[in-house]
Amino acid sequence: MEEQSLTIEGRNSVLEAFRSGKTIDKLFVLDGCMDGPVKTILREAKKRDVIIHYVSKERLDQISDTGKHQGVIAYGAAYAYATVEDILELAEKKGEDPFIIFLDGVEDPHNLGAIIRTANLAGAHGVVIPKHRAVGLTATVAKTSAGALNYTPVAKVTNLSKTIEMLKEKGMWFVCADMDGESMYDLNLTGPIGVVMGNEGSGVSELVKKHCDFVAAIPMKGDIDSLNVSVATGVLTYEIVRQRLLAK
Amino acid sequence: MEEQSLTIEGRNSVLEAFRSGKTIDKLFVLDGCMDGPVKTILREAKKRDVIIHYVSKERLDQISDTGKHQGVIAYGAAYAYATVEDILELAEKKGEDPFIIFLDGVEDPHNLGAIIRTANLAGAHGVVIPKHRAVGLTATVAKTSAGALNYTPVAKVTNLSKTIEMLKEKGMWFVCADMDGESMYDLNLTGPIGVVMGNEGSGVSELVKKHCDFVAAIPMKGDIDSLNVSVATGVLTYEIVRQRLLAK
Repeated sequence: MEEQSLTIEGRNSVLEAFRSGKTIDKLFVLDGCMDGPVKTILREAKKRDVIIHYVSKERLDQISDTGKHQGVIAYGAAYAYATVEDILELAEKKGEDPFIIFLDGVEDPHNLGAIIRTANLAGAHGVVIPKHRAVGLTATVAKTSAGALNYTPVAKVTNLSKTIEMLKEKGMWFVCADMDGESMYDLNLTGPIGVVMGNEGSGVSELVKKHCDFVAAIPMKGDIDSLNVSVATGVLTYEIVRQRLLAK
Repeated sequence: MEEQSLTIEGRNSVLEAFRSGKTIDKLFVLDGCMDGPVKTILREAKKRDVIIHYVSKERLDQISDTGKHQGVIAYGAAYAYATVEDILELAEKKGEDPFIIFLDGVEDPHNLGAIIRTANLAGAHGVVIPKHRAVGLTATVAKTSAGALNYTPVAKVTNLSKTIEMLKEKGMWFVCADMDGESMYDLNLTGPIGVVMGNEGSGVSELVKKHCDFVAAIPMKGDIDSLNVSVATGVLTYEIVRQRLLAK
């Protein structure tokens, strides 16, 4: 398990961090700010004996990574990466077929954050990212995930293809998104499944694609090339949700 | 029709602007940059007698709105807003039932850009945004739309509710996204349809919601509140695509 230190910024993210039981080391609040959401955060902080610093806007701007702190910044205990085993255990605990999102080189923290948010709401059990040539769990990712990072495990692996092969041996199927594939509406996407999404510019790499059982295309009838990767992940993931609901 | 001046930044966006036949007033290219994509852009520019300026990186950084110019910035003739009638005409020209996305106060330019991109690929005929309390067609929107803004008309209206009522009289149905609604999988979303998506924080306003025929919920089984609005638009829009394909 690798750890990475993190500032949690913005009212929703900080409140969500408290509510999910995350360990907060320090809280910075804009001096004199006493509206409802801030009061709720202060109440949570006092309940947990968190050290509170009342500081100026200039100081908050200085600490802030994202520039969008909304008067509240927490220093969280580091966001821990999960392991692939943690993700499988979560599926088992819920008594569900594993449903995991694999990202082959997503670079934009806003995309990673939005995808973790989607994974949480679609009922996926976790997200797997590669160690190299991809964004990790930065403050922007945490903020963009709107709190989902507190619930949805994210594992970082050295070699995506090897992880895919290991999971195929455990009975999982892999589908990757690529416009050369079959329409996703014509594929059976139920059962224990891994969804592989590619890099913003270049898509899923040929190497990783070779390890997938299916290639799914999102039907497109427009003039441009591709959807934003976080939108595409949402669309494909929800086709899986729909098929899983029907299969019940 | 309102106009707004615009710099087009980045290789794909500039090339797409040329290809779609947009009028480019001036082109700024990083001096000495001669790789493939830049050469293609220069060829397009010369074909159209566009004034080309070879400039330093510092100069490009200075002109840039987004900070992501990739060595190429074009001053485009202003992006023109379309009218709702333009959007209806586009649907008629294609011989399709109108399929329009309405945004009730989307504020983030990345979200608006990603939604225009989705509208284009899902085969929607246009996007309608309100004049007030919403982002317009900025350079960031154009860049995030990955060229879709050249093809998909965006209309700006003073009063969303009035536009919705006007279109209902012409036989369109309106569905708005809200977690209090019926599952989108249980609704019939075929026929001439308008999809209404809400603001990033507060969703669709009560006023606008009242004018909609259906309220559709995206099934959610996670711990947090909502999807990113551009992801939610993709998921709901593609459920309409799926139902339209089936209905054929």
